[in-house]
Amino acid sequence: MNFLEEKILSDGSIKSGNILKIDNFLNHQIDVDIMRQIAYELKRRFKGVAINKILTIEASGIAIATMIGDLYDVPVVFAKKSETANSTDDKYVSHAYSFTHKRMNSVFVSRPYLHATDRVLIVDDFLADGQAVHALIDLVHQAGGEVAGIGIAVEKGQQKGGRTLREEGYHLESIAIIEEMDWQAQTIRFREQPQHDLTNTPIKAID
Amino acid sequence: MNFLEEKILSDGSIKSGNILKIDNFLNHQIDVDIMRQIAYELKRRFKGVAINKILTIEASGIAIATMIGDLYDVPVVFAKKSETANSTDDKYVSHAYSFTHKRMNSVFVSRPYLHATDRVLIVDDFLADGQAVHALIDLVHQAGGEVAGIGIAVEKGQQKGGRTLREEGYHLESIAIIEEMDWQAQTIRFREQPQHDLTNTPIKAID
Repeated sequence: MNFLEEKILSDGSIKSGNILKIDNFLNHQIDVDIMRQIAYELKRRFKGVAINKILTIEASGIAIATMIGDLYDVPVVFAKKSETANSTDDKYVSHAYSFTHKRMNSVFVSRPYLHATDRVLIVDDFLADGQAVHALIDLVHQAGGEVAGIGIAVEKGQQKGGRTLREEGYHLESIAIIEEMDWQAQTIRFREQPQHDLTNTPIKAID
Repeated sequence: MNFLEEKILSDGSIKSGNILKIDNFLNHQIDVDIMRQIAYELKRRFKGVAINKILTIEASGIAIATMIGDLYDVPVVFAKKSETANSTDDKYVSHAYSFTHKRMNSVFVSRPYLHATDRVLIVDDFLADGQAVHALIDLVHQAGGEVAGIGIAVEKGQQKGGRTLREEGYHLESIAIIEEMDWQAQTIRFREQPQHDLTNTPIKAID
């Protein structure tokens, strides 16, 4: 079990409707130690991948994006949301359905902040249906740039976002993937993930 | 001239209506080096002040708040905005007029994330009329906590926010204070500020 899975078990709670509530450390109150660990872990998982920009969406993705931008020492861009926005000379616009607000939101980035030469790491705190990430991918592609990877803190593995992105061939890394949750029993099962730290031949202890 | 004033001169621009546009490094694209320097400078200016929590408001305050929370190693809380929110058992609610959206926004923090024992450093990227900061102060006071200080990147010195907060007795530190701007000439005058680094007796060079 990794640090984020342990943190979810110790500090999170499951609300009725199978909603995982971890806004005490991830997306309302922010535990900076966990954010720093998330940033280091994502950088480790994308080792060897050339990245010159971090892209996220307001608001709760900004903390992770800032921490990982600090590690890579590259600019961070956060896409803005609004109820209405049209593509213009000065911005790229895409769209994402907000399940929270039950409406289609415009998602945009000013043109000077995405380029055809960009190799972008998209990051966000949560991945569920994938609406926000797909809008961010669309913005990168409108600018002619390349999506070098997608880094997520918590993926809801039962929703289609992660599966779709992997099928589309994106390099997606989610630190914790929730396979199932039970509100009444307050139990979570995480998806087993490859032990990334064991890709090198491990040193063996001498008996 | 300090690092932020220099950055504003080199990378910012003044738009008609005397709008300072610095979203290429502060509040849309984020220059992590500048953010880190802002965090270090604010921590230096609040040296000796006991702080156990950082409070900001979504969205663009989150990057600075994350960096400074990382330096202090304390939790960061960002207040959320919505068009409608009422005080309930589970959240503190205040109100701030949004000049951008020309409407009154609700600003709220879940009750578990502000306490009577908190000594809070409020941070934000911009201070103009002071609506957002006053709403954050109100939230801290509703929880019975204390505002230990207010740290701002860029203050618009001609608007009333900074003057009001200083008159109210708050310890407000703004790294750059714009005293006047001229769109047509593309000129800015910054308010002279005490040289904070000279509060100790400086070492003198031997002739």
